[in-house]
Amino acid sequence: MALIFYSPINPAEVWGPELKKHIPDLDFRVWEEPGDPAEIDMALCWKPPAGGLAKFPNLKVIFSLAAGVDHLFYDPDLPDVPVVRMVEPSLTAGVAEYIVLHVMRHHKDQLRFAEQQRAKVWEEYFAPPAWTRRVGILGLGVLGGTAAGMLKPIGFQLAGWSRSPKQVDGVEPFHGPDQLGDLVARSDILVSILPKTPQTENLLNADLFAKMPRGASLINAGRGDQLVEQDLLDALESGQISQATLDVFRTEPLPAGDPFWSHPKITVTPHSGGDPFPETAAKAVAENIMRFRNGEPLPNIAHPEDGY
Amino acid sequence: MALIFYSPINPAEVWGPELKKHIPDLDFRVWEEPGDPAEIDMALCWKPPAGGLAKFPNLKVIFSLAAGVDHLFYDPDLPDVPVVRMVEPSLTAGVAEYIVLHVMRHHKDQLRFAEQQRAKVWEEYFAPPAWTRRVGILGLGVLGGTAAGMLKPIGFQLAGWSRSPKQVDGVEPFHGPDQLGDLVARSDILVSILPKTPQTENLLNADLFAKMPRGASLINAGRGDQLVEQDLLDALESGQISQATLDVFRTEPLPAGDPFWSHPKITVTPHSGGDPFPETAAKAVAENIMRFRNGEPLPNIAHPEDGY
Repeated sequence: MALIFYSPINPAEVWGPELKKHIPDLDFRVWEEPGDPAEIDMALCWKPPAGGLAKFPNLKVIFSLAAGVDHLFYDPDLPDVPVVRMVEPSLTAGVAEYIVLHVMRHHKDQLRFAEQQRAKVWEEYFAPPAWTRRVGILGLGVLGGTAAGMLKPIGFQLAGWSRSPKQVDGVEPFHGPDQLGDLVARSDILVSILPKTPQTENLLNADLFAKMPRGASLINAGRGDQLVEQDLLDALESGQISQATLDVFRTEPLPAGDPFWSHPKITVTPHSGGDPFPETAAKAVAENIMRFRNGEPLPNIAHPEDGY
Repeated sequence: MALIFYSPINPAEVWGPELKKHIPDLDFRVWEEPGDPAEIDMALCWKPPAGGLAKFPNLKVIFSLAAGVDHLFYDPDLPDVPVVRMVEPSLTAGVAEYIVLHVMRHHKDQLRFAEQQRAKVWEEYFAPPAWTRRVGILGLGVLGGTAAGMLKPIGFQLAGWSRSPKQVDGVEPFHGPDQLGDLVARSDILVSILPKTPQTENLLNADLFAKMPRGASLINAGRGDQLVEQDLLDALESGQISQATLDVFRTEPLPAGDPFWSHPKITVTPHSGGDPFPETAAKAVAENIMRFRNGEPLPNIAHPEDGY
């Protein structure tokens, strides 16, 4: 039996050897040379082409190369087998560090200093201490929780929102649709690290922005379709939102003609918050392969009905 | 007896009332209307004009509005009285948060993404996890130590250097001129938060840059004359240094013609790392005023012979 690998951004020539360090007898196959499709029982993928995985009749498990699994569930012909989300230290660190960076940029208003530098203007500005700043995190899974653990020692007033009740140390908890408005109303800096689900689609919209404190800011590190793009442009225009940082978009790569690219109050990053580094992530995948081989329960199985 | 106030950036109309909240009978006087100079026994200042404080014959103590005191000691006619450095929570937080922001910017290479955004280029880049990144902090006083306490939970490998041996939790310690090279050689991101002293002048020079790992980066939040400016430009040109963030300069405001303003690898901020917010800083000053009135020992007294 064999594992098939597909990713447009993660190199097979690195992942194959890294996995074999942990499982020397692993039959690792690349998408272009799968050999006999009937021999494939495992897949390790990021954004495989629609219908691609259906070609392997004996596929038993899919390992996602990402924390999110929307890059798989979009496929109507996705085989009905367990999908395992990527949960491993380097991806978690990358995303949490991304959130810390951009919360700090918004908090200290680095955008103001960048504008001043371009204009060669020297004008002091002193951000208030972090202990006066309220940060709200939408999504309190391992990524949001880890970010909170890094932000807390800086001194921010943290709150978090999740679908079902969750307790994270030092984070004021909110949950469910009824408490979303309360979370948003006390967030000077609002961060989304929510997964793509039917419930999170268009969540970041004009109604939500109107509930935020005037001049609050937004960071979207979740998924692009959570954001109603024109509503953000309007809220920036009115000053209700002061700035936004976006790592995810409805269309990726972001088209060259998109107004986000050149908007002075929007920071665009190319879906680069975090990525599983093979050194640590291959170990996590290898452990799951061994569990699968041994018939043991797999952790972090995605729920298609919830979308994550 | 009375306190004379001077600052080109801190508003007297805020500081006066804030101090009087704590000491209602305080005789608070502004520079333009000092009244009888003989009645002044205390000064609270940032960058007073040279010779200005010498006009008060009964001055007994000077409270600095900054952590550094070089803005006072430059004055050859400075009265020979105790100078108390500003140590209070909002200034400490502001500077430490500044360091965290720019360490994160360098670590995640936000400069690369800003360049890509200007060019409307979508190109993923994934920084390695913070646990692989070595940050070196020059200066382990309350500012450097507080920054270290915020950076540690993010996962960085921290080391610090100080004039005399110091232990800060989670920070590999280096001290004295002999160990400076060792600290620098293991710093992917080097931060200076050193005070202005004869020993720190021109410390950030070509010799030091040559000892850093190739492609390392620099953050100067100490004082401008620590940096040999042409050496930095040369090191950026050669690629030995990949980028720099500078909050302090030999001449402030930075002159409009300075090449730093438009250098693509230099981030300029207008000496805005941190500032004492009156809400917390006036309380700290008021406590020192009461100690002075009661003849009690004053904390954080500067040493003119050391320059801080």
